[in-house]
Amino acid sequence: MKAYISCEAMNERSPLAPDEFPDMPPIPGVRLAATACGLRYRDRTDLALMTLDPGAQVAGVLTRSRTAAAPVEWCRRCLAAGEARAILVNSGNANAFTGRLGQSAVERSAEAVAALLGCAPQAVLLASTGVIGEPLPVDKITAALGALGQGLSAMAWEAAAAAIMTTDTFPKGATRRTSIDGVPVVLNGFAKGSGMIAPDMATMLAFVFTDAAIAAPALQAMLARANDRSFNAITVDGDTSTSDTLLLAATGRAAHGPVSAAADRRLKGFKAALEDLLVDLAQQIVRDGEGASKFVTVTVTGAASRRAARRIAFAIANSPLVKTAIAGADANWGRIVMAVGKAGEAADRDRLRIKVGGILLAEQGARVPDYDETPVAAHMKGREIEIEVDVGVGRGRSTVWTCDLTHDYIRINADYRS
Amino acid sequence: MKAYISCEAMNERSPLAPDEFPDMPPIPGVRLAATACGLRYRDRTDLALMTLDPGAQVAGVLTRSRTAAAPVEWCRRCLAAGEARAILVNSGNANAFTGRLGQSAVERSAEAVAALLGCAPQAVLLASTGVIGEPLPVDKITAALGALGQGLSAMAWEAAAAAIMTTDTFPKGATRRTSIDGVPVVLNGFAKGSGMIAPDMATMLAFVFTDAAIAAPALQAMLARANDRSFNAITVDGDTSTSDTLLLAATGRAAHGPVSAAADRRLKGFKAALEDLLVDLAQQIVRDGEGASKFVTVTVTGAASRRAARRIAFAIANSPLVKTAIAGADANWGRIVMAVGKAGEAADRDRLRIKVGGILLAEQGARVPDYDETPVAAHMKGREIEIEVDVGVGRGRSTVWTCDLTHDYIRINADYRS
Repeated sequence: MKAYISCEAMNERSPLAPDEFPDMPPIPGVRLAATACGLRYRDRTDLALMTLDPGAQVAGVLTRSRTAAAPVEWCRRCLAAGEARAILVNSGNANAFTGRLGQSAVERSAEAVAALLGCAPQAVLLASTGVIGEPLPVDKITAALGALGQGLSAMAWEAAAAAIMTTDTFPKGATRRTSIDGVPVVLNGFAKGSGMIAPDMATMLAFVFTDAAIAAPALQAMLARANDRSFNAITVDGDTSTSDTLLLAATGRAAHGPVSAAADRRLKGFKAALEDLLVDLAQQIVRDGEGASKFVTVTVTGAASRRAARRIAFAIANSPLVKTAIAGADANWGRIVMAVGKAGEAADRDRLRIKVGGILLAEQGARVPDYDETPVAAHMKGREIEIEVDVGVGRGRSTVWTCDLTHDYIRINADYRS
Repeated sequence: MKAYISCEAMNERSPLAPDEFPDMPPIPGVRLAATACGLRYRDRTDLALMTLDPGAQVAGVLTRSRTAAAPVEWCRRCLAAGEARAILVNSGNANAFTGRLGQSAVERSAEAVAALLGCAPQAVLLASTGVIGEPLPVDKITAALGALGQGLSAMAWEAAAAAIMTTDTFPKGATRRTSIDGVPVVLNGFAKGSGMIAPDMATMLAFVFTDAAIAAPALQAMLARANDRSFNAITVDGDTSTSDTLLLAATGRAAHGPVSAAADRRLKGFKAALEDLLVDLAQQIVRDGEGASKFVTVTVTGAASRRAARRIAFAIANSPLVKTAIAGADANWGRIVMAVGKAGEAADRDRLRIKVGGILLAEQGARVPDYDETPVAAHMKGREIEIEVDVGVGRGRSTVWTCDLTHDYIRINADYRS
């Protein structure tokens, strides 16, 4: 099964990790707690509860997997209401491909939280991450809820972010301040993800909270757009999780007048802050990609459309040969040419331009005259790799982020067993 | 650049390799020779010439890459005539993404072979495999042609198959006997390929010869069909080469009456033999997949269509998480569920059935009751892995072949440099 490992064997913190977890302020109307309920791991937390004061609006983006997990289907139903009172998340078991047992585990979890908070079970959103196909030991979760409720605090952001980790090597958080109609508002978010990370979905688990007063449909529209530019623009291994869940909750406790439409001009700053925060979290997931030793930015320009640019960028970012070349600090632009060719999108081979680390390597269908690999090789030895490709047919443009493919990816996924 | 390595550092023969190169009989009208012209490697052959007597009919399937190499474009033009007199193949340099220099290298090579044989340059088909983006040192090739012409023999199949290898660890050949209208005919084929192997094309290089008397359009129709069931059904790393070329030449020296239509009933045995031979070569390429330690057969049934079944099968066969689990001998069927989900094709999660090594693991959306991993774990420790998935929505069916993803794939592609 998925190589979740106990703390003793936990992988070292990624070399691409930020120095520390950010200082995250309280968000009025949000409280958090985390605990260890012993689902799979020894000596670490694996359950997080986030409560929302009555009236909080919610939006979500969920995996498009055809084998979505039970909590994903639960969220899909509950999100239609646009309101929620709590989010309960466990790590260690994805409650995916668990049949009727999985559905009943979801219902029992939601009912137990609802009893604790005095709300409807449908107001409790759920997410699970971990091994696929094993029944979720839901009794361990319900038994831990009492203590969780006692421990709720406005400050436990890092504890919650740590409790949802699986093969992650660091907890991922981000915070932004902006204003709506001149009134300050805060956004806090945290996320987990390290393997089974691929585009075209909301990747793994991410939770964002704000005190802004914005109606659920407007939240949903903004979240979908910002997600497309952040979580949908990253890949670690091209594998799409059954459990990907991104939720955004707005408590409405900020003092500005309520906003109901995403097109409202007062949301300009909020939209930018939301996108910026999601890009930050998404990039942290790439920086914690299983076995990652380098963070890679791939920008494709000159494509037939934005969609075409993204497909080409992902063909590069998901190519095992490109990713292993980067791991080996090899400026192997021939493999980039190959990946452009296999993407299936229009590209003019004889107008292709390729830059690595800002240095032009190839143009007009061939290597530049007097190509000197020295500065490119120096760039490839660094931790942050920049690849730019212009495919010479149009104005479509897209940037995606990925990491390299190293021995540690194989070690994490092949050598260890749970 | 691509990690082609000199003989001293050559990888050990794949553990999945066949015991020996097959005994291949002469094909009347075909002669072969191989030599070392020093394009890239030390101490090994890198140039093969196959000549065809006048009147030979040819067909070909070429890469669909948008960044196809110069010799691929040359073949595309020449194949329209349906006749050829020679095929010249080099390893060590793909002559891909080489701009005008690449085109002129192609023309000079074809002209030199044409001068040797007294034919038109357009009757000389070309293929190159190796590093992308470096100018082909065509002088080394033309200088070697005289000796190649002297050395032509009806028996040099293994020598030709060895000369076109790059990261391959063994030469790949196959032979079949069949009959047309009661007259015996022979098919011989050889191929190379180890990395940059992906579907939706004729993978890397493969050359098939027969003494049958079949017109080019009929050859082309049969080749396209058989290719779809062989080379288009394998993957090593999901990366599509710029140089993929599959050619079939028929010398017409067999004594049966000429056949002009693929639908001719006399070709029944020939079609079966051709497909069987191509499947054999395609599977040999997978068995020599970079770093491969296990040969994997993925069969998907119950899909909405054959095309849908193949997409799901490739989603499984290309998943890094599935491939690393196989490398680790881990019966991680949760990752198979994930891959089915990400394929984007219709699948009924609650009717999914999964077998590994013929043993039913999961059905009706959950693990089977009383699941015993012992026999499955024993199967996973073997060299030949069988995965069967029924997605429960229709009658579409497809089988693809792949290998596992191991440390050696990373070592070959990241740790070595040319």
